[in-house]
Amino acid sequence: MTFHDRPIFPRGIRCASRNCGLKPTAKDLALFASEVDAAAAAIFTRNHFPGAPIVLGRETIRGGRLRAIVANSKCSNVATGAAGLINARRMATAAAAELGTTPDRVLVSSTGVIGVPLPIEKIERGISGMSRELQIDPLVGAEGIMTTDTHPKALSTSIGDATITWVAKGSGMIEPTMATMLCYIFTDAALDAQALDAMLREAAHASFGMLSVDSDTSTSDTCAILANGMAGAVDARAFGQTLTAGCVAMAEMLARDGEGAEHLIRAMVRGAASEPEARRIAKSVINSPLIKTMVHGADPNVGRLLMAVGKCFECTIHPATTDAWINGHAVVRGGVRLAFDEAAVRASLGDETVTLEISLGVGDGAATAFGCDLSRGYVDENAAYMSS
Amino acid sequence: MTFHDRPIFPRGIRCASRNCGLKPTAKDLALFASEVDAAAAAIFTRNHFPGAPIVLGRETIRGGRLRAIVANSKCSNVATGAAGLINARRMATAAAAELGTTPDRVLVSSTGVIGVPLPIEKIERGISGMSRELQIDPLVGAEGIMTTDTHPKALSTSIGDATITWVAKGSGMIEPTMATMLCYIFTDAALDAQALDAMLREAAHASFGMLSVDSDTSTSDTCAILANGMAGAVDARAFGQTLTAGCVAMAEMLARDGEGAEHLIRAMVRGAASEPEARRIAKSVINSPLIKTMVHGADPNVGRLLMAVGKCFECTIHPATTDAWINGHAVVRGGVRLAFDEAAVRASLGDETVTLEISLGVGDGAATAFGCDLSRGYVDENAAYMSS
Repeated sequence: MTFHDRPIFPRGIRCASRNCGLKPTAKDLALFASEVDAAAAAIFTRNHFPGAPIVLGRETIRGGRLRAIVANSKCSNVATGAAGLINARRMATAAAAELGTTPDRVLVSSTGVIGVPLPIEKIERGISGMSRELQIDPLVGAEGIMTTDTHPKALSTSIGDATITWVAKGSGMIEPTMATMLCYIFTDAALDAQALDAMLREAAHASFGMLSVDSDTSTSDTCAILANGMAGAVDARAFGQTLTAGCVAMAEMLARDGEGAEHLIRAMVRGAASEPEARRIAKSVINSPLIKTMVHGADPNVGRLLMAVGKCFECTIHPATTDAWINGHAVVRGGVRLAFDEAAVRASLGDETVTLEISLGVGDGAATAFGCDLSRGYVDENAAYMSS
Repeated sequence: MTFHDRPIFPRGIRCASRNCGLKPTAKDLALFASEVDAAAAAIFTRNHFPGAPIVLGRETIRGGRLRAIVANSKCSNVATGAAGLINARRMATAAAAELGTTPDRVLVSSTGVIGVPLPIEKIERGISGMSRELQIDPLVGAEGIMTTDTHPKALSTSIGDATITWVAKGSGMIEPTMATMLCYIFTDAALDAQALDAMLREAAHASFGMLSVDSDTSTSDTCAILANGMAGAVDARAFGQTLTAGCVAMAEMLARDGEGAEHLIRAMVRGAASEPEARRIAKSVINSPLIKTMVHGADPNVGRLLMAVGKCFECTIHPATTDAWINGHAVVRGGVRLAFDEAAVRASLGDETVTLEISLGVGDGAATAFGCDLSRGYVDENAAYMSS
């Protein structure tokens, strides 16, 4: 599949973003709107302390229809109690009034610091008038939901006559076990909510469900898809495949821009006893601080690969059948480190994308996880997140 | 319990250490010897890629008797295949010859880089003559097993007429799910191997089993105890309690000196549905990069506590009954962030020891985990471990 050089929206989808005073000057509020009601599905964080917008969103998505998404950054409206839920509802009501729809058609997201009361008056004032600023550039909306992201993130592709567009933010507190950070997907293809839900879960399973920047699971993860039908019917199977491929590309974009990251790391596991075991092992590799720092330092300390595979105690692993490669260089065979060309592997670890392959030789399970290196930048950003 | 101001050995235990050429000049070889055969027990890493010394050690410990431990640092003899096992046996044989015992009475450990062939000739030459250098200072032996540790680690205490001494190394690749890095425990109390094994497992469960520097599990973890009986019988119950308390103190010493660490973090969980759930949640808190960086930056971003508790999907957690404290300051009540004194909490996070308490209000399960903050120092050390 190919993405458009510059992301575009499907028919009937537009967005706006503003600074409403949560951040000093940067954009902190985004509105995404469909001209007509769209069939919709969404998946949310599995964290036991979901933010108020997640609690509300689970209720809203039951209707299977959305007209809009309103999202703010800087404050996540998590651990804010009953007042938090009231504020999330006020946010939906304000966006609905602005767009001439009802609050049950508006999905709300908040991202940022946990445990700070949502400045709802600023947000309500900010939403007022946004409908007049709606435009066709997805990056405008993406800008409004950034936290520590270094750039706004959007992708789009064509499928037949229809378009699919992904708008997301990522960066830290990212190991979305089921959904992800924030990712909004828009299409003008005609699909019902039930089909969307099934396809979204399948796509997230292979993409955001295999993404980890730092093994921490956000309390605000939301991945939603809206299909307004303005381009008519599409081949559902092809749509599902394209949806998954685009979600994988977005997961890689998020990993690449993980806090402090300089490398995208792909951990590809095959030959595992089962797919769940392959996923477990790929995640262990991608989350290992010692592998992350190995990539960061371009230091071919390849034994760490075995360490990270081997600490999956509950998985079937036989050293004698375990092989490993770094960017195509064979470094381990039968559980034993090979005498590989160190200079070549060291140089290859300098590549922007580092692919770690593990073959376990015990079954047919395969999975790929997406992550990034661990740098001083991650430490610096997160040692002073509140204060910055 | 109180520890001796300067650690001493039990009767009949001595040690020596040398540089045998694995490191440029620092000590890289240690020998611990008992005058007489000792009852012994040991637990080892659960990593699927155990080093050759672990494979050999599991065989050796079946006999339940040890005279000596020989250990080298700098090279872990892991992922080295059949040659690795031969080299581990040669190491035991050399130490046995030096001490006038048999190889099946010698426990071997190697710690350091994974996947590098063990320079066995250097080690054999190094062992030769060490019996004439045996001395009574445990720190001498501790020095020989250091890798990135910033200081040698030993503790000792009296129990009745007997002494217990702990000698350990830690630093990185540390989440010993069952045993630990390297920890050797010596006593002159008279106890049989079976009793030692049971007490060692109980002590490790509460101490090294709850320790994590970086969530990575070493392929060389070994915790062994030798009891040579030279002080006669002791009260077994009191001995077990003292053993556990000393192991907890040593776990805290290891966490404090984790790679790049500036703080010891204790995560105390109570009111969980069960002890396993309390352990799972305490480990999640101690391993969260966002909590580790929060402590490092003394940044009271307390919502991260809820995030790390809440990502234990499989545990029973109710926001309404969840409370949290940082060094005694109440920061969360009923899942909601309290309006606490930020300046006071920020100042308190600057303490060398940071205690995070979580009360879940759903049962009687309790556990404490030990860890450390995440600093640039960890990244720097591990981005260039091979090369340094």
